[in-house]
Amino acid sequence: MKTSELKKYIRDIPDFPKKGIIFKDITTLLRNAKAFKKSINAMAQTFKKSKIEYVVGVEARGFIFASALAYKLGAGFVPVRKKGKLPYKTKSVTYQLEYGTDTLEMHEDAVGVNARVLVVDDLLATGGTVRAVVDMLKSQKAKIVGVAFLVELKFLKGKEKLKDLPIDSIIQY
Amino acid sequence: MKTSELKKYIRDIPDFPKKGIIFKDITTLLRNAKAFKKSINAMAQTFKKSKIEYVVGVEARGFIFASALAYKLGAGFVPVRKKGKLPYKTKSVTYQLEYGTDTLEMHEDAVGVNARVLVVDDLLATGGTVRAVVDMLKSQKAKIVGVAFLVELKFLKGKEKLKDLPIDSIIQY
Repeated sequence: MKTSELKKYIRDIPDFPKKGIIFKDITTLLRNAKAFKKSINAMAQTFKKSKIEYVVGVEARGFIFASALAYKLGAGFVPVRKKGKLPYKTKSVTYQLEYGTDTLEMHEDAVGVNARVLVVDDLLATGGTVRAVVDMLKSQKAKIVGVAFLVELKFLKGKEKLKDLPIDSIIQY
Repeated sequence: MKTSELKKYIRDIPDFPKKGIIFKDITTLLRNAKAFKKSINAMAQTFKKSKIEYVVGVEARGFIFASALAYKLGAGFVPVRKKGKLPYKTKSVTYQLEYGTDTLEMHEDAVGVNARVLVVDDLLATGGTVRAVVDMLKSQKAKIVGVAFLVELKFLKGKEKLKDLPIDSIIQY
């Protein structure tokens, strides 16, 4: 399978989560063994020589890609979670959503100083979530080697919020 | 690394999520590349000849193991999610918690009739969550080949709720 064929495994869902939005449903890609494997391999290809020590995944869909990528790259996996889910001492970041704010947390000892980190999420939309995660990791003195997404919605210009970082996305709209 | 060494990467957190409970924090295992890889390989070892078509992961920590296992086994990944998160038509199951109930959902077209499915979660405690997930999958006529956990808390006797199924856990307490 070629990377260019992956798009056909993504399903459009009109009016989810609200009217007027066409949601890109990736579960139809994930359930296809070949498409899932190809997606992970394509993400790994970009960063395989980057000496990644930790792959950071953002709850919940980011876990899916970050975990398999960490396994493939021989790196550790670090979860960034919603507030109150992590049991040990945490660092947190609060960021703006369309309506209101959201808070994400990581364990304060999850990545060391100068650790080489890849941040992974399923979707690059406005870039707000991953920008917040990157800033939280930088405040912990991690070295952000790159940011990887399965899908990028180019018309939302999320890349502009992340232009200090190497960005890779496998499927673009 | 041997499977028997994995236990030392798990951290005890007293009084989380509430007083009197000692929480088994697996993030310290996940962040260690070798321990994470060993865990996934050990889970895969048990089911590598079982012709698994889909690995089902339960939101959110179950995603971490199910995704890497699906990748390793060459299977598709299917998420079971909290209510309202999946965009397409769903089947759902509601089950009893210590206080109140919880509802989980899967896409109704996620696994086909007679599909060979492995259900994965991080922790086997009372077994209520995975029992509910297995019942939901069976109502969709999936064939449950097995259930895999990283950690089993034997004193909670979750296995009794799942005794119709092959169960594997990597670390026991």
